[in-house]
Amino acid sequence: MQETQFVLMLWFIGIVAEAMTGALAAGKQRMDLFGVVIVGSATAVGGGTLRDMMLGNYPLIWIENWHYLLAIVLASLLTVVIAPVMQYLTKLFLTIDALGLAVFSVIGAQKTLMLGLSPAVAIVMGVITGVFGGVIRDILCNQVPLIFRKELYGIVAIVTASCYVTLQLAGTEPWLNLSVSLWLGFSLRMLAIRFSWSVPTFHYSIGERR
Amino acid sequence: MQETQFVLMLWFIGIVAEAMTGALAAGKQRMDLFGVVIVGSATAVGGGTLRDMMLGNYPLIWIENWHYLLAIVLASLLTVVIAPVMQYLTKLFLTIDALGLAVFSVIGAQKTLMLGLSPAVAIVMGVITGVFGGVIRDILCNQVPLIFRKELYGIVAIVTASCYVTLQLAGTEPWLNLSVSLWLGFSLRMLAIRFSWSVPTFHYSIGERR
Amino acid sequence: MQETQFVLMLWFIGIVAEAMTGALAAGKQRMDLFGVVIVGSATAVGGGTLRDMMLGNYPLIWIENWHYLLAIVLASLLTVVIAPVMQYLTKLFLTIDALGLAVFSVIGAQKTLMLGLSPAVAIVMGVITGVFGGVIRDILCNQVPLIFRKELYGIVAIVTASCYVTLQLAGTEPWLNLSVSLWLGFSLRMLAIRFSWSVPTFHYSIGERR
Repeated sequence: MQETQFVLMLWFIGIVAEAMTGALAAGKQRMDLFGVVIVGSATAVGGGTLRDMMLGNYPLIWIENWHYLLAIVLASLLTVVIAPVMQYLTKLFLTIDALGLAVFSVIGAQKTLMLGLSPAVAIVMGVITGVFGGVIRDILCNQVPLIFRKELYGIVAIVTASCYVTLQLAGTEPWLNLSVSLWLGFSLRMLAIRFSWSVPTFHYSIGERR
Repeated sequence: MQETQFVLMLWFIGIVAEAMTGALAAGKQRMDLFGVVIVGSATAVGGGTLRDMMLGNYPLIWIENWHYLLAIVLASLLTVVIAPVMQYLTKLFLTIDALGLAVFSVIGAQKTLMLGLSPAVAIVMGVITGVFGGVIRDILCNQVPLIFRKELYGIVAIVTASCYVTLQLAGTEPWLNLSVSLWLGFSLRMLAIRFSWSVPTFHYSIGERR
Repeated sequence: MQETQFVLMLWFIGIVAEAMTGALAAGKQRMDLFGVVIVGSATAVGGGTLRDMMLGNYPLIWIENWHYLLAIVLASLLTVVIAPVMQYLTKLFLTIDALGLAVFSVIGAQKTLMLGLSPAVAIVMGVITGVFGGVIRDILCNQVPLIFRKELYGIVAIVTASCYVTLQLAGTEPWLNLSVSLWLGFSLRMLAIRFSWSVPTFHYSIGERR
């Protein structure tokens, strides 16, 4: 199996996991099945779509290959069916989601470097790809995005994308870079969940600003 | 009258109706007239704008022809003036809105097919054009998008766009296709309102996900 | 100093001020530092980014020159540090923010005219550049955008952009146009704050619309 196929497989697992988090969030808002599918889809492809629209990088992946959308729609609907047993699968689910986060961050950075853009922009795009699906999900569900408040989610995206970009610039062999970056991101996310690591919060309440 | 002129006329009625739903939603949030105009405009052109930005299809319609924006601004402000009598016009208003939904769904699919994209993408773009104006309106008003919760709004967009795309691929004569698709979408929406048809909802409350 | 350098300097002051309003808004939602940086950045470059994505005008400024992003990230984090003294700096801060609004509105209109687009579109883009950073900030913080409800913020953007476009079309010397437009926008905003000028609000509560 080639490295591109390997990444594609991981990416596919990632978008399915993201579609499921979107469908569950929709269920918490008691949305109908149409809402479930839309929120699931927006969560799954939202980060990558925003990245490519910012880069002017057309056509979008899911427009070029609509089979991904079909998989996302099915994953969203499947989530509704298996929701009653989801409580027993929390650990499995968090694990897949952590893998998805690492893969999205690496892919976002990788695609940006391939377009010949700067390392700094590649890291930013890795973060956008990794976390903005979740941001769009929470906006559609009328919530303050949870990744802005809890756990080490955004930081994992920054570290993962930075690691990938650094090793790439250092001329590391692609397979090695991929393995190290994905493993670092995945481990960091799992450790953050296990030990409830979080980023300091900023609480501002003085006065009233527009 | 040519079919393109006919569609253009219906589209114009549609954006005016959408601008009015936006203005009314802004009024429920006690926004000022600036907010009314912005929410009205975003509701009217939001779906088509998102579609064209996703397709990389530039220039946007309202940038190429700003007279549409002028009409939308005027429709938003007019809504403020006639708001006191809107309660007596509910049926008329729902009828125009239903027409707008059908027209937007057909136009979104039509434009996508004309760009040479696949039927599946054309249906997705029909749905985005039909419903995302309302989604953007509800996000700007800090509400969970109502189309994710109530009535057969999204499904009407899916059915209408699918009908248009299928008949188009089957080589149906343009006028006939337009008439059938618009009539199907319009009727389905009116029946859904009349009989309170809705899509099953998904209610998920077990446990706490990230 | 050339006029382009002068505008660039003002623009830089503007994005730093906007990043600070974003960071403060994030602090009111008790976000973590990652959220503070994301909301700060989105507020600072959100309006211009949306404008350029609507115009299909690539590459985006902060992708072409990522040093701006670095400045925005630092401004967001600095805000957290100096938050305790922000209450004594309210007037200074409102002054800088008013300057930013005027500069953003002028720049949005200027860039649009340079692309050869119509005066009406240039005014619309001036308004989008001026106010949508704040709209995106409020959406990320799960608030109804304040500029839709309070004070003369949107109107200042309209007046400033219209003034610039009109003088430009009248062939006014660039320096003079810049000075007049910026001064008009800045003064109008400061007067609006001083005298609590506002736009009439629209309150609609009759019946229930979709």
